[in-house]
Parts: sequence; structure tokens; C-alpha cells
Amino acid sequence: MRHLLGIQELSAEEICKLVELARSFLALSRRPVKKAPILRGKTVINLFFEPSTRTRTSFEIAGKRLGADVVNLSAKASAVEKGETLLDTARTLQAMNADVIVIRHRLAGAPHLIAQHLARGAVVNAGDGAHEHPTQVLADLVTLAEHGGWEGKTIAIVGDIAHSRVARSHLWASRKLGYRVRLVAPKTLLPAEVERFGCEVFTDLDAAIEGADVLYMLRVQTERLESRALFPSLREYHEAYGLTKARLARAKKGCLVMHPGPMNRGVEIASEVADGLASLVLEQVEHGVAARMAVLVSLCGGEAS
Amino acid sequence: MRHLLGIQELSAEEICKLVELARSFLALSRRPVKKAPILRGKTVINLFFEPSTRTRTSFEIAGKRLGADVVNLSAKASAVEKGETLLDTARTLQAMNADVIVIRHRLAGAPHLIAQHLARGAVVNAGDGAHEHPTQVLADLVTLAEHGGWEGKTIAIVGDIAHSRVARSHLWASRKLGYRVRLVAPKTLLPAEVERFGCEVFTDLDAAIEGADVLYMLRVQTERLESRALFPSLREYHEAYGLTKARLARAKKGCLVMHPGPMNRGVEIASEVADGLASLVLEQVEHGVAARMAVLVSLCGGEAS
Amino acid sequence: MRHLLGIQELSAEEICKLVELARSFLALSRRPVKKAPILRGKTVINLFFEPSTRTRTSFEIAGKRLGADVVNLSAKASAVEKGETLLDTARTLQAMNADVIVIRHRLAGAPHLIAQHLARGAVVNAGDGAHEHPTQVLADLVTLAEHGGWEGKTIAIVGDIAHSRVARSHLWASRKLGYRVRLVAPKTLLPAEVERFGCEVFTDLDAAIEGADVLYMLRVQTERLESRALFPSLREYHEAYGLTKARLARAKKGCLVMHPGPMNRGVEIASEVADGLASLVLEQVEHGVAARMAVLVSLCGGEAS
Repeated sequence: MRHLLGIQELSAEEICKLVELARSFLALSRRPVKKAPILRGKTVINLFFEPSTRTRTSFEIAGKRLGADVVNLSAKASAVEKGETLLDTARTLQAMNADVIVIRHRLAGAPHLIAQHLARGAVVNAGDGAHEHPTQVLADLVTLAEHGGWEGKTIAIVGDIAHSRVARSHLWASRKLGYRVRLVAPKTLLPAEVERFGCEVFTDLDAAIEGADVLYMLRVQTERLESRALFPSLREYHEAYGLTKARLARAKKGCLVMHPGPMNRGVEIASEVADGLASLVLEQVEHGVAARMAVLVSLCGGEAS
Repeated sequence: MRHLLGIQELSAEEICKLVELARSFLALSRRPVKKAPILRGKTVINLFFEPSTRTRTSFEIAGKRLGADVVNLSAKASAVEKGETLLDTARTLQAMNADVIVIRHRLAGAPHLIAQHLARGAVVNAGDGAHEHPTQVLADLVTLAEHGGWEGKTIAIVGDIAHSRVARSHLWASRKLGYRVRLVAPKTLLPAEVERFGCEVFTDLDAAIEGADVLYMLRVQTERLESRALFPSLREYHEAYGLTKARLARAKKGCLVMHPGPMNRGVEIASEVADGLASLVLEQVEHGVAARMAVLVSLCGGEAS
Repeated sequence: MRHLLGIQELSAEEICKLVELARSFLALSRRPVKKAPILRGKTVINLFFEPSTRTRTSFEIAGKRLGADVVNLSAKASAVEKGETLLDTARTLQAMNADVIVIRHRLAGAPHLIAQHLARGAVVNAGDGAHEHPTQVLADLVTLAEHGGWEGKTIAIVGDIAHSRVARSHLWASRKLGYRVRLVAPKTLLPAEVERFGCEVFTDLDAAIEGADVLYMLRVQTERLESRALFPSLREYHEAYGLTKARLARAKKGCLVMHPGPMNRGVEIASEVADGLASLVLEQVEHGVAARMAVLVSLCGGEAS
């Protein structure tokens, strides 16, 4: 593995290896001294063209706990403002001997473009448009592995499927790893030609919940919904697609709740569900750090990888 | 001590212990190698919802000199923009196994709210609205301790008392530690029911200076003053409440001058006073790093605390 | 050497020593473990009042590879917004026992002002207005040294000379080190009294190319050009002053191409030239990290300097 561009590019074996490596880091992050300087003397650059608390921070913490030198670059402060191309920015960071460039960009394919043109160093996709968000899905898989595994399970992904990179990455993972994905959304939030994805599609949440092992709620991008009139109101969205306690009560026994965050409480998920026993939301966050440690080590960890 | 939320929550003994621990770090910060890796493998997050050079930098330097992994999060780049609640942001950072969350927020009580809801990790108040700024006051106490102690001394705090978290934290400290605070301001900059604070209140600076051991000048928030018409002009403010050389000359012999910074020279303090022999302004800054080191070590330093 | 304010302040011997020290760091940055903790326990502050990807990142990476604690401060987040003077900001950082303050500022002379007023700590000029950018020129000199040296060479600097701190720093270096500089620009982009610089001035690029060993293309600040009407259009600029493959073909054999970045491809430099064999652009970036390591070590490296 030279880069981590998407789940699409990984084999089932590679995914499983990353998940197992991540799980081996879980204990480290709970020790009093959270440090395994495997990446000492490595340079990790977080190149974020979109704002993000959790993903950027997660990568930064992952890199630092591994002993790497981590440098943050946000789009605003970057030479992009001065008209530099994305490729030149990446080449410049490569010339500074960056070992890993972690990139988030609003355009699908941006990490792939960079990866194609760099002779040295690894590229990690931290979210590209509506395309892929592989480290989020690796975090989710670590979480599923910690809760009995994913094999044969049915995961209902609910919300703005059309714009969700997480949904797309889960679709790739599900095919490779043997779990089922149900896509649940109003028609206006389903992608065109959704049937080509080859999975069950629901417009009725209650029907989709039946038999599901995991309810995976997506964040409603409130600004998008309201401005483009894709949905009458947040209240109506909540009534039709919000995960309430009453709805969850009708799900299969032991049904788990996941969300990639940040949550809009009272919109796609009720507070009592978000904070309830079935919710794995904070575990996903914790496992995200471990997943990113696994990715960084695999890409530039030398003997440890 | 699980968190540092305010001076109000600390006992006199706890305050004195922090001040003494801070003083023990003063020498370290002047050595060629400023490093005591007591917090190696700890994660310190600076979560700043208001801009700040000195406080954020001071915490960052304190953490790094102690060997901690320090991560900065500013409000703009954070998930708050995407509608996440303050508590969810804090829970997310806790899930990443942050040992300390240092928070500055414009709302009084924000650090307390977070602290109440976190099962693990410590919260440090780096300034919450007009409520408290405990590490500034700890820095000030280190400074006073280095100049003969605070016992029985009279500190005149001059300026925008109504909006000053530093003034409130000093009021708490003065009651616990046995020094006297005088509040000095025009009536428009005094809080409602100021008499309830149980200390001397002056509207005349020259009267307040008489017998004071320390003149503690507060920053005039020029944008606030001018827009809300709380004061005719900065020039008139300077004439009535600015600390000039002439005024300082009428103070008690050995009277010291303090300011939490950043200073508006020519407004609340004349340049020749700011740079004069009585000024402890830069010592306060230096001691601020030591005070924050003491706080971080006390909250997560293991054997050293 | 107490500070690095400009090439003007350095002797030929000091420049050569820095270049040689930088070259000794080149191998380090290509090793798997890029770490030489010479500056462990030192505090380096990047105080940037203007945005910059490459210079800030380059200093940050340089400091971290040397083991220093590096703290970034951008103008927006700084106390400057609250009315603090530049000197007070610098004094505050000095009080926090910063060993090096790296400053970029839009005003020429800002680093010198700070340096004059600080009793402790070193100041490094990372670009001050149109005045000097000494670490860029040190990076360029490392690059020239790696390509046969600078002695007796002729460097044609092409573009917005009037606003270029890089051009000014090269003028100083050329006099001290014995290379020749040609300034090439339309009259509107030449500084007033350019003849006082004592070097050849061209308004015709093709004439300037003749006999030049290095073509040093400056970034066109597109916003400046278009708003102030200093030049009809970017297309016409490219035709008259852009370095195309055809133009480069008419240059001396072995003629090298340099650019301080970020590049405007298709304006001052054609893509095929930027990516061509003669281009040293990415080497300049790599050497920039080494040059900054040399500067930091020289200013606060103890035995290694």
C-alpha cells in the first residue's frame, strides 16, 4: 500500500490488516503515557481545504502519539490563495520531504490527482467531495469489530446519501467484506441512478429499520437542505428520518446506532438516542484515532508496518 | 483537584501549592534546554472560541516544555460551525483521550458545563466571558510572591471592571489569601450591585492610588467603549483613568504596576509607566507560562503533581 | 550573528558558513528518520502577519526536525487585533522565553525594529515588505552551490522587481559573493532610481537572457497587476516576460531556471519550463528547509553552531 485513497482501492485483506493494526493501538490510547514513537523523524502534513474538527484533530493526535512531526496547513493560509495549483502545493510539500500528506478537499478525486504526480511520499484521503472518506469507514469497522464483527450484518445508512462520502466508502467496504448496506433517504437526497449501487434502497425509515443490525445516521447539512429546498423543514425531516427512541424501540434487539459526527441533535438523531446505550458515536471517535495511527504506520512506519 | 474552573473553586492551600509549583518552574524556562518531559504521552487540547495570543501561546509553550502533545483548535475551524453543540465538541475530544481540555469561551460557565459532563480528562478555564480567568490570576500571584508576597497588600484594579474576568478572579483570590482589592472605574464600567462584592469601590483614580501597593490596570476594550458610549472618548478616559508618570509619582513608595495585557498604550497606561521600573507586565507574562505548567502538571502529571 | 535580519547585514564569510551548514543538513532531510535534536528545549515562534504556505511550513519543519518546540502565531489570531503594538507582541514572546522569533510582516524594517528592542532571543526576517527575504536567498545559494557555485555567474531576475524582497536580497548577496544580477522588468515594475542599484537593467527579456547562467522568474502578483493597471493583461505579460520553452531554448547552454514560488503557470513561467530539466524550483524548496535549519542552529544551537 503506497497511498490510502479510498476503500475502493483496498483488498479485503488490506482492510482487515488495517483494522487489526488499529485495534492493536486501542490500548495505547488509554494508557497514561500515550506514546509509541514508531514514526519519530517522519513528517506528516495535514492539508485541509475544508474545515474539520474531528478529522484533522484525529490525524494530528494520531501522528503525534506515534512521534511524528505534524504540520497543519489550512486552505486559507495557503499559497492556493495566491493562485498556486493544487499539484504545485503538493509538490512543494513533497520537496520538503513530507512522508505523508493527509488531504481533505471539496473536489472528488483531488487526493488521487496528487498521488499520481508524486514520486515520493504517501497521500491519505481525509475526505474528497462526495466521493470517499476511507479513514472514517476504517474507524467504523474497528467499532464493528469490537462489537462482534461485520460479517453478515445489515447496516442501514440514513440521510443525505447523495452527498455522503461516508456512504460511498461503506458501499465499497460492504462488497469486499461481506456485509449488507441499505440506503435510506427521501428521493431528493438519493443520488441519481442509485439502483446501480446494487444495494437495497428505502425511502421509508421504519421499513429500513426492520432487521437492521446497525442504524448509521448521517449528518443533515442544514444549510444545504434549507437553501435548496430539498426538504420542507428540519422538523419534518426529523419526523420522517430522525432516529427517535420510539423508532429505535421497534428495531431488532441489540441494534446499534452509529453516526460519523458532528451530530445535529433533534434533526437526524434524538438526544436520548445519541446518548443512549445503543449509541457507538464516541467509540467511533476513539477508534478513529487508532485507525489513523494504523494508516500512518502502514504508509511510513518501516519495521512496524 | 480534578479541573481548574476558577479561583472560586480553589482553597487557599490549593492556590498556594499551585503558586509554589509554578515558582519551581521559573528556573526551567530560563535554562538553555527548557524541557521537563513530565507530561510525555499526555494530550493537551487548546479549544479557543475567542482569539488570544498570549493565553493560547502560553498554554501551548507550557505544554510543549513539559513534553505533552499539544493540539490547537480554534472556533472557526471547528465543528461548531456545522452546528455541533459545545458539549458534543468536548465529548469528542474526550473520546480522543485528551488529558486536558483548555477552553476559552465568550460565555460564562462554559468550562463548568463541560467539566460536569466529562467522565475522564481535566478542564481548564482559560477565560469564560466576564466570569473568571484563573490562570491569569495564578500568574499574577506568582509575580506578587516574587515581589515580597501578597499578604496584607492592597491592589487597586482600574478600568472596565464590569466586563473583567480578571477582576472577578482577583476578588475570589483576595478573600481566600488575605489581600485587599479596590475596584476603580467610572460608574458606567462598574458592574450592577458592585457593593455586594464587599470591597472598596472608587470612581476617582487618584483617591484609589493612595495607599495602594499595586496598581492593576485593565485593558480598555476600545471597540466596546466607543460603540456603546460608555465613555466620551479614549482621551478623556486616559485623563481620568490612565496611569501616567505623574499619577504614579503620587503613589506609595515601591508601588508596583501590573497589567494582564495586551496593553493600550496611551489609554489605560502611559508608555513611560508600562516600560518603567515599577512595571511587572513582562514578568506576569513569563510567570504565566510557569503558572500554566503548574496547572497542567497538577491535573495530569502523575508523580510530579 | 545574533539575528538574521537581512543579507545586507551579513559578511560574505557568514553567508558562506550558513550555506555550508545548510548543505550539511541536506542528507538529513532525505533519511528515513529526519531528526537531529540539536534544538531540543528551544522555543521557536513563527509570527506571521502575512499568509505564507511555504515559508511558514519550511520554518516549522526545520524547527521540528531539529527538535525545537515550534509555535505558530498568525496575525488574525493575535493580540494585534486588540490594538497591541508590534513591539509589545514581540516583548510578550520574549517574556515567554522564546529563543527565536521568525517574523513575516508587510512593513519593511519590522524585524529590525523588534531586534533593536529585544534584550534576549533572536529575530529572523521571513520577509518584510519589499525589503528583504534572506532565507529565500540562502536557499537559492544552497541550490547554486549544489549546481557548480555562484562565482562569476550572471543571474537575470525577471518580473515585479519594484515589490520584490527576493530581488533586493539577491542584490546584496551578489555584491558580497561575486555574482552578477540583471534586473528585467517593464518600466512600471522597476523601482524608482533603479540605476542606483548598480546593476544591469533590462526591459527586454530576450536581451537579458543572452549570456545569463540563471533565469530567476518572480511571481506576478496578479491582483496587484490587474487592479493598478501596471500591465495591460496577464496574457501580454506572458508574451513579453513569461519564460517559455522557445525563449529558454535561446539561452546559454546549461542555463538554469529558478523561481521562489508560488508559481503562476502560464503567466511568468510556462508549465513545460516549470517542470522541465532546467528547473530548480523544487530543489529550492527542499534547500529552503535546510537553509532554515542552518539559520536556527546558528542562532540558538549551542555547540552545533
